[in-house]
Amino acid sequence: MNALGTFPGTVAIVGLGMVGGSLALRLREIGARVIGIDIDRETIAAARARGAIDSGSEDLGAAGEADLVIIATPLDRIATVGVAAARRMRAGALLTDVGSVKAPIVAALAAAVPDGVHFVGGHPMAGNEKQGIAAADASLLDDRVFVLTPTSRTAEVALATMRTVVMRLGMRPVVLDPLQHDELVAQVSHLPYLVSVALSRAVADDARSIGGPAMAEMTRAARSPAPMWTAICRANRDAILRALAQFEHELGRVRHGIEEGVLVQ
Amino acid sequence: MNALGTFPGTVAIVGLGMVGGSLALRLREIGARVIGIDIDRETIAAARARGAIDSGSEDLGAAGEADLVIIATPLDRIATVGVAAARRMRAGALLTDVGSVKAPIVAALAAAVPDGVHFVGGHPMAGNEKQGIAAADASLLDDRVFVLTPTSRTAEVALATMRTVVMRLGMRPVVLDPLQHDELVAQVSHLPYLVSVALSRAVADDARSIGGPAMAEMTRAARSPAPMWTAICRANRDAILRALAQFEHELGRVRHGIEEGVLVQ
Repeated sequence: MNALGTFPGTVAIVGLGMVGGSLALRLREIGARVIGIDIDRETIAAARARGAIDSGSEDLGAAGEADLVIIATPLDRIATVGVAAARRMRAGALLTDVGSVKAPIVAALAAAVPDGVHFVGGHPMAGNEKQGIAAADASLLDDRVFVLTPTSRTAEVALATMRTVVMRLGMRPVVLDPLQHDELVAQVSHLPYLVSVALSRAVADDARSIGGPAMAEMTRAARSPAPMWTAICRANRDAILRALAQFEHELGRVRHGIEEGVLVQ
Repeated sequence: MNALGTFPGTVAIVGLGMVGGSLALRLREIGARVIGIDIDRETIAAARARGAIDSGSEDLGAAGEADLVIIATPLDRIATVGVAAARRMRAGALLTDVGSVKAPIVAALAAAVPDGVHFVGGHPMAGNEKQGIAAADASLLDDRVFVLTPTSRTAEVALATMRTVVMRLGMRPVVLDPLQHDELVAQVSHLPYLVSVALSRAVADDARSIGGPAMAEMTRAARSPAPMWTAICRANRDAILRALAQFEHELGRVRHGIEEGVLVQ
């Protein structure tokens, strides 16, 4: 467990997008040495230019130097990249990720991580509709929830270390079962996005031009990257369909209220 | 048409809530003398304490001193109060209102306003989920659309004066037919509110506590005053039901995309 005791120590972040980049910026602020790993050389150069990383590599082997490895790739790559990273990590080091859907990732990684490497699934609930290292901003993390999803096999010291990491990031640790996490984010994150998409589509262009602040803020989420959301909707399909059904039920009640002329709230 | 030429001159605002109060604050900033008229003495006192009005009255007769009278009462009172105010207004003065639904108000007022008094329906698309004079804030108006809904009987000079007023308020005049306005706001204002209400109801309390920024901003509108929205939903029922149907259609497409695992955006 030596590596865990050294935090902030050395942290490798795999995937330098908006979330990975924001974590990198904050980790450097709090004194960590940050290794940025990305498949795209220009992204690494941009991260270095922004001061988000101390060093960069296109090689996952660089994760072997880290006490903490954070997988921040697109959702549908996290399990594969996480397993590959875990095989290169030093004994006692800690692996986490930032995936928006936890049950499939936790199942895949918990089964594949070698003995001596600790894994705790994570989901920093931060960000906006942008993407890429240019959109990275440490302040996006401030006071946001960072969900941790340990399993019965997670070592207590690993969870305790992740709690410390999250608090040092300026975020709020919330511990949830992976399936419970997926059910809740279907409601508070995935459903709002899908509602925002449907609202954007439902409104005619000539109407949009006179839209007030409510319309602007309710369609902002719909502008976030479609491929990311497609991956989320595939990974969390059943919970999302349950949340949608509940929303449609409530919308039906609202419609009924309008038809009858009664209070809608 | 003498009174119209004197703007900013003297403006009477009937109903000192968030919108009336915000207009009062801005009008005083740009040099108008503002008479505040409200049925509630404490509201008048609060408006005076905030510097929103030069003088206050519980008597609609005070509208007789004004070059411009703005009816900013709750929606379901605008037509009645507007007709009563118009009877007390001086010849050549201009009457407008801030109602969120225009066709019924414009029909009622255009028929009842005495000769010599000009009427142009209005809808400043500004505000937030709060209410009352305490929530008044001139900056809420900045760069927002102020819809004007003249009819074939509206004098050109009256519309031109209202355009000037709107621009002096720091807002953007948009001229629409009353029915067209009601159809568009059903989409960009009333629909988003109802969606926000349904979303608030659909999400379990334990989920809400981990909600990220998207959830917070998409349920903000739902916190605005229910009685106001009930009046809006009654006054604009048919257009709102059409907008809801269009939204439900788009939501069905989104659901289908998730069921099939295809791109949702």
